[in-house]
Amino acid sequence: MTTQALVSEIKKKQSFLCIGLDVDLTKIPSHLLELEDPIFEFNKAIIEATHHLCVAYKPNIAFYEAYGLKGWTSLQKTITYLNTNHPEIFTIADAKRGDIGNTSTMYAKAFFEDLAFDSITVAPYMGKDSIEPFLEFKDKHTIMLALTSNAGAFDFQTLTTSKKPLYQTVLETSKGWKNSQNLMYVVGATKATYFSEIRNIVPDSFLLVPGVGAQGGSLAEVCKYGMNAQIGLLVNSSRGVIYASKGLDFATQAAQKAQTLQLEMADLMSDIL
Amino acid sequence: MTTQALVSEIKKKQSFLCIGLDVDLTKIPSHLLELEDPIFEFNKAIIEATHHLCVAYKPNIAFYEAYGLKGWTSLQKTITYLNTNHPEIFTIADAKRGDIGNTSTMYAKAFFEDLAFDSITVAPYMGKDSIEPFLEFKDKHTIMLALTSNAGAFDFQTLTTSKKPLYQTVLETSKGWKNSQNLMYVVGATKATYFSEIRNIVPDSFLLVPGVGAQGGSLAEVCKYGMNAQIGLLVNSSRGVIYASKGLDFATQAAQKAQTLQLEMADLMSDIL
Repeated sequence: MTTQALVSEIKKKQSFLCIGLDVDLTKIPSHLLELEDPIFEFNKAIIEATHHLCVAYKPNIAFYEAYGLKGWTSLQKTITYLNTNHPEIFTIADAKRGDIGNTSTMYAKAFFEDLAFDSITVAPYMGKDSIEPFLEFKDKHTIMLALTSNAGAFDFQTLTTSKKPLYQTVLETSKGWKNSQNLMYVVGATKATYFSEIRNIVPDSFLLVPGVGAQGGSLAEVCKYGMNAQIGLLVNSSRGVIYASKGLDFATQAAQKAQTLQLEMADLMSDIL
Repeated sequence: MTTQALVSEIKKKQSFLCIGLDVDLTKIPSHLLELEDPIFEFNKAIIEATHHLCVAYKPNIAFYEAYGLKGWTSLQKTITYLNTNHPEIFTIADAKRGDIGNTSTMYAKAFFEDLAFDSITVAPYMGKDSIEPFLEFKDKHTIMLALTSNAGAFDFQTLTTSKKPLYQTVLETSKGWKNSQNLMYVVGATKATYFSEIRNIVPDSFLLVPGVGAQGGSLAEVCKYGMNAQIGLLVNSSRGVIYASKGLDFATQAAQKAQTLQLEMADLMSDIL
């Protein structure tokens, strides 16, 4: 998917919501457990109930790998379902991969070609030649960890390097990489005040923002400092939407939570569009 | 597997060789392609030909994920084969994972419980709470990227933080994490002179060393600066061993390459044991 198509979809739906499909069998409604593929059935119901309210879905790959072959099958069915029935949706493999060149190429093929995701999250620690193989794919997007939303973000990401915090060096350096136009960045919503510094370095890039909702970030703060003329934000909510209810009404309850966020987004976007 | 069991095995076999099972269908002997599961058949033959010469096998997960469900099946069969037939072998899931707490727990379960690997490689960028979930598992080992062997290592890992290069801060900080006795570190062999600095910080930890062979590092240099009284090294070779030949004799040729390395190791160990 092109960035332009994503922006159009955001404008059309008045939403930059990304829903995290982090499916834990202990948390989904029990009536689904009797079905052959409870994870896929859960995802399908959530997607059908919420796809008009969001522009992206983000399965965290860990939750699928934890169930081995069965989990991988559920992931494959979910992405195929999305690509077949909702091709306008931007799909994110939240995989946080990164390895030396030829191995990164294998990961890129796995997620961009075999599974046909629009994008993947990657970790920057191994540097340029671990990320560039992902950037070679046309109309595919590579979302690099910059400043994450967890407590451990302060262990290394905010350390000073060349008089700047590491995450700023990461952002600046990555702009010089080949095909860097295919880069997006993960920026945690729990640190909204950092957004203005980040926007000085990457004014035009899309930022994937986890941590609104269960992790405690404020949507209004994120938008105040992080939004650009193309919106430039994908705000994710996982648990806050998909586990709204454990009952038969889980999908409609999820839709309600998604709608609350979407309405808030439409309001916050109104100044710009 | 306990560290003590690994050390015993190293002493018994006079080898600290780790063989990387990074299987690419375009590189394996063509007669295997007619079989139902060429990747597993290739691995099985390599394992049978080399298991007496090495103490560890390291499948890089990217190479399996690239083949989707089929690849995941081959991985599962390979680790089951190793655990059933060669339980004395130390197994490494080269996955370079790392995510926020609950997600890291899912990855830990996937690789330590479902697949029953002895260890996994992880990336440090997200800090303490992204790694500690892996460290909770008894007799399981978490191998953290410190200084990698690729060119991109110099993008961030060697930047100065608090007057020290980032990778040294990563090493020092991680020593304070809960269950840090379960940590090992990835240290690239292409920078052998860094090993003495690293040994000042983590004298007793095992170091997983990629980059000997195809990537160009020298085994003697690595040992000179990196070996400790317990050896404390696992030196990996992937392509240099497993793709020694494309013919019917691929497994015996692989064994020959492995033996050359093992003999060199036995020689280098002789001063210590």
